[in-house]
Amino acid sequence: MNIGSHTFDEFVSIVKSFHGHAAPGVLIGGIMVDMALKNLPEGKFFDAVCETTKCLPDAIQLLTPNTIGNGWLKILNFGRYALSLYEKHNGAGVRVFLDPKKLEDWPEIKAWFFKLKPKIEQDSQLLQDQIREAGTRPFTIQGIQLKPEFITKKSRGSIVVCPMCLEAYPINDGAICRACQGEDPYVEHEVY
Amino acid sequence: MNIGSHTFDEFVSIVKSFHGHAAPGVLIGGIMVDMALKNLPEGKFFDAVCETTKCLPDAIQLLTPNTIGNGWLKILNFGRYALSLYEKHNGAGVRVFLDPKKLEDWPEIKAWFFKLKPKIEQDSQLLQDQIREAGTRPFTIQGIQLKPEFITKKSRGSIVVCPMCLEAYPINDGAICRACQGEDPYVEHEVY
Repeated sequence: MNIGSHTFDEFVSIVKSFHGHAAPGVLIGGIMVDMALKNLPEGKFFDAVCETTKCLPDAIQLLTPNTIGNGWLKILNFGRYALSLYEKHNGAGVRVFLDPKKLEDWPEIKAWFFKLKPKIEQDSQLLQDQIREAGTRPFTIQGIQLKPEFITKKSRGSIVVCPMCLEAYPINDGAICRACQGEDPYVEHEVY
Repeated sequence: MNIGSHTFDEFVSIVKSFHGHAAPGVLIGGIMVDMALKNLPEGKFFDAVCETTKCLPDAIQLLTPNTIGNGWLKILNFGRYALSLYEKHNGAGVRVFLDPKKLEDWPEIKAWFFKLKPKIEQDSQLLQDQIREAGTRPFTIQGIQLKPEFITKKSRGSIVVCPMCLEAYPINDGAICRACQGEDPYVEHEVY
């Protein structure tokens, strides 16, 4: 089977290079993205929603023009193994998800997905073989329409200097930046 | 100047290919990531924090092993142009930020950063030239220590099937998945 313009083996190499190893989640994600791309409604510019932070965003970044940094990929951290591609102006698109009802024929995929085995007991090669053999069968595709509030781009306003940290931040976040409001993850800062 | 193992021009091409265009934010981000990598304390495995969703995460994904999908890059959406790399077990590392105090010599960078001009009036070539010429000078680097709660990996528990949408989700999110709790961005689902 092919994934985008790549053979499965080529995609395995691409995943290793970007993601660090041939993670089953990114391989599965590749098949899902490919399904979504082949079923897109007409339109020029597509945005992406990914419903998990794990693995799947990398498949989207590798196979579409959509990245976290260019803003065309949004992550909603629902922990669902699902992605949507939709026309960015009207919000019409498709959603693909790994369907729990469709996993019985591939026990290694099921065990990985539901974390039924400790990682150490996973048979990576068998899992990869089942992913390749299963192809698009473990997934369900749906037509979707984004709610208007998810289509509109919200501006965070002008960029100003935070009076506490003296760094720049968007004024709509408040009188001081969010980090100085208490979200800062650091114990200490020490200027070199 | 070089960015990682690339010349500046090579990095411009890499950014175009991944990010869609040679966005000034990713070029600036490349210089920032390079500074951080050259100043890392000793350690084997580094995680990354990016304090904005805009552009900078792509520079991190292109120049380090850290991606959104492999979990080694976390985005905290403070809207500050800053990133940290830190040893993943002890949380010690470095932080680099675009320093508002250091922009006076590069008016085009300052205008871009503070959105002082409409995009249409930006001189992209002049901006890119100033980014290249300025090198590491517009940035400040700090030693940082992550708070313990940001170092520990939180598990979201077993994967179960949501009784509403019949998709899999992490049980720690509640009795039904977060999408079914009201965060779902879709107006309708229609199974093909």
